[in-house]
Amino acid sequence: MTDSLDALDRLPLRDDLRGRSPYGAPMIDVPYTLNVNENTHPMPPEVVEAITEAVREAATGLNRYPDRDFRELRAALAEYLGQGLTEENLWAANGSNEILQQILQVFGGPGRRVLSFMPTYSMYPLLALGTNTEFVPGERSADYSLDAALAAEQVRRHRPAVTILCSPNNPTGTALGLDVIEAVYEAASEFDGVVVVDEAYAEFARDPEDTALTLLTGRERLIVSRTMSKAFALAGARVGYFAAAPAVVDAVTLVRLPYHLSAITQAAALAALRHREGLLANVEDIRRQRDRIVARLTELGLEPASSDSNFVFFGGVRDSRGLWEDLLADGVLIRDVGIAGRLRVTAGTEAEVSAFLASLEAHLENRR
Amino acid sequence: MTDSLDALDRLPLRDDLRGRSPYGAPMIDVPYTLNVNENTHPMPPEVVEAITEAVREAATGLNRYPDRDFRELRAALAEYLGQGLTEENLWAANGSNEILQQILQVFGGPGRRVLSFMPTYSMYPLLALGTNTEFVPGERSADYSLDAALAAEQVRRHRPAVTILCSPNNPTGTALGLDVIEAVYEAASEFDGVVVVDEAYAEFARDPEDTALTLLTGRERLIVSRTMSKAFALAGARVGYFAAAPAVVDAVTLVRLPYHLSAITQAAALAALRHREGLLANVEDIRRQRDRIVARLTELGLEPASSDSNFVFFGGVRDSRGLWEDLLADGVLIRDVGIAGRLRVTAGTEAEVSAFLASLEAHLENRR
Repeated sequence: MTDSLDALDRLPLRDDLRGRSPYGAPMIDVPYTLNVNENTHPMPPEVVEAITEAVREAATGLNRYPDRDFRELRAALAEYLGQGLTEENLWAANGSNEILQQILQVFGGPGRRVLSFMPTYSMYPLLALGTNTEFVPGERSADYSLDAALAAEQVRRHRPAVTILCSPNNPTGTALGLDVIEAVYEAASEFDGVVVVDEAYAEFARDPEDTALTLLTGRERLIVSRTMSKAFALAGARVGYFAAAPAVVDAVTLVRLPYHLSAITQAAALAALRHREGLLANVEDIRRQRDRIVARLTELGLEPASSDSNFVFFGGVRDSRGLWEDLLADGVLIRDVGIAGRLRVTAGTEAEVSAFLASLEAHLENRR
Repeated sequence: MTDSLDALDRLPLRDDLRGRSPYGAPMIDVPYTLNVNENTHPMPPEVVEAITEAVREAATGLNRYPDRDFRELRAALAEYLGQGLTEENLWAANGSNEILQQILQVFGGPGRRVLSFMPTYSMYPLLALGTNTEFVPGERSADYSLDAALAAEQVRRHRPAVTILCSPNNPTGTALGLDVIEAVYEAASEFDGVVVVDEAYAEFARDPEDTALTLLTGRERLIVSRTMSKAFALAGARVGYFAAAPAVVDAVTLVRLPYHLSAITQAAALAALRHREGLLANVEDIRRQRDRIVARLTELGLEPASSDSNFVFFGGVRDSRGLWEDLLADGVLIRDVGIAGRLRVTAGTEAEVSAFLASLEAHLENRR
C-alpha cells in the first residue's frame, strides 16, 4: 500500500485531486445490507424473465452501436412520468450521477459555482470536483429543514450557476415543499441560474404527487432528475434520467459521450418500465417498513427525521460509531454518514427491519 | 427548430459550448452500414446465448448496486491481454470514450493541454472540451505518417499534460511503430506527461504482437486503452478498458462515478470474454476483407492507406462528397471524415465489401 501510495504521489494528478479519497460506501458482505438505500425486496421473477428476454433480443445486434438518442426509452420514461411530458423532455444516462455530471459539464465548470444544502447527497461535491465547478455548501436550519426564505437568500448571495436541491433529501429523508423550489427558481432567475431537483426517492414520498415535475411548465432552467435505482429496484442496471425543457436536452447532447447508454441498458430499462406494476408494488411495503422504523425509533426515545424516502435518518445516539459497530457485529450494515450522534438506515423488507430493530434494541442502552 | 435553437441560446451554457454541434455520425437505415467501423459479422448464436444466460443470473440481483470495483471483469481482461498483467493493472468503463474522459479528468483539466496528431479520432477534441482541457492539434507528415522525431519534437514544444496516440489511427488506419511511442514517452518524461495509446483496433493489426502493452513495464505514466466494441463485436454493450500501472487505476478512482459499470454490462463482458474464440474468429475474415479492399482500390488507381484496422482510408477521389452520395443512393453508407478527396470505409462481410466495391466501380469515373 505504501508503494502504491508513493506511486500515486508521483503521478501528475490535478492538484485539487491530491490527497482525496474516492467515493466509498463500505462494501461488506453481511446478512442485512441496509446502508446504500437499495430496494432490498427480491426482483419479481417475471421482471427477471422480461429483462432476460429483452437482452436476448438486443444481444443479437450487440456488434452494432446502440441508438445514440434512445428515443424509445425516452418515450417510455415520459409516459411513466405523465404530466404531459414527451420524449423531447426526457434524457437518460448511466445512473443519476452521470446525469448530474453532464449537467455540470454544460452549465457548471471553471469559474462557475454549484450550490447545495448540507447535509446532502455526498456525490454532489465530488461531481463538482470532477467537473472543475466550485462547490458551495449551503446551510439548513438546525433541524436540517430548509424553508423558502433561507434557501432563496443563499441563492441570491452566492449566485450559483447551478443549484441542486435533493428532495426527498439524502441523508435526512425529508421532501422539500414545492414553495421552496419555486422560491429558489425565482431567485436563480435573477442571474439565469439552473436549478436541479434531484428526486431519486420521489416514489417513496408520503405525497408522491407533490413533485417538481408539476413546476416544469414555463421554467426553462428547471431540471428534475430521477432514477430507476430505487423504486424500480434497478440499482444494478444504472439508469438515471431527467425531465426538462427540450432545449436542456439539446444542451446536454453537446457533452454526452456518444452511445453512452448501451443497447442492453436500454433494453433492460424498457422491460422494467413495461413491468412496472410488479416492481412498484413493493414501494407500498417499503413505505410501511419506513413508517414502522420511524414509529419504533420514536418509542425508543430516538429522534428520527420525518421521511419521504426509503430510509430513516435518526439522532439521539451518544456514540453513533459504537452503535454502528454493534449493529455490524450482528450482521446489520447501516450508514454512518459522518454526522456525530446520527445514523441512517434503509427501509428493507419486514424481516430485515425486524433484524435491525432487534439489534438496535439490544445495544441502544450502551450507546445513548 | 428555430424555436428550439432560440431556447438553447437562452440557456446559460458554458461559453465554449455555444454554437457547437454534438458528435454525430449520421444514423441512416441502409442495407450496408460501413461508416462507424463496427464489426458487421453477425453475433455467433452461442455468444448471444452466453450473454443472455449471464444477464439472467445478474438480473436477479439488479436491485443491488453492482460491484463498484468489478474485479472479476478486470481479472478476465488481464488474462485476455496477457503480458503478465493482473487485475491491478486493468480498469474499464462504458466505452473507451468514458475511459479517455476519466483520464482527462484526472490528468488534464483547466490550465492543462492534451496533444494528439491530426487527423485522428474525432472524439479527442470533444473530450478535451468536455473536461476543460486545451486541445492541441499536432501535425503529421503530408502522407499522414508520424515518425518518432516529428512526434517527440511536438511533445517537447507543447509540453502537454496528456498525449494521445491513436494506433492503429482512426481515420487513417495505420499503426504507429513502437519506436514512436517510446520516443513520445521519453519526451513527455521531461515534464511528467502522461501518454495514452488508444489501441481500439489493435486486434486487426497486421502484427498484433506489436502492441504498446509490451512497453508498460517501467513506464508509470503510459496508459494503453482498448475496447470490446471492435474485435469483440460488442459496440452495443459499451465496454472500453485500459492497462497501466496500478497507481493509474488508483488515480482514476478519484473521478470515476461510483458504480459506473452496470451489473449487466459486467456480466455481458465476462460472457463475451469466456466465448472469445467464436468472436475473434471473425477478425481473420475482417482482415482478409480489409486487404481485399486495399488491393482492389489500388487496382482502380485510388490511394488507400496501408491499414492495420478494420477500415480503409483512401484518397485519389476528386469529388469525395459526390462519391459518398452516390454510394448512399446505392444503399452503401461509408464515412466522409471531412477531408476533401478522401473517404473511409469499414471492412465488413464479404457480401458487404462486394456491394461497396460494385457501387464504387459504378460511380468512380464521374467523381475522380
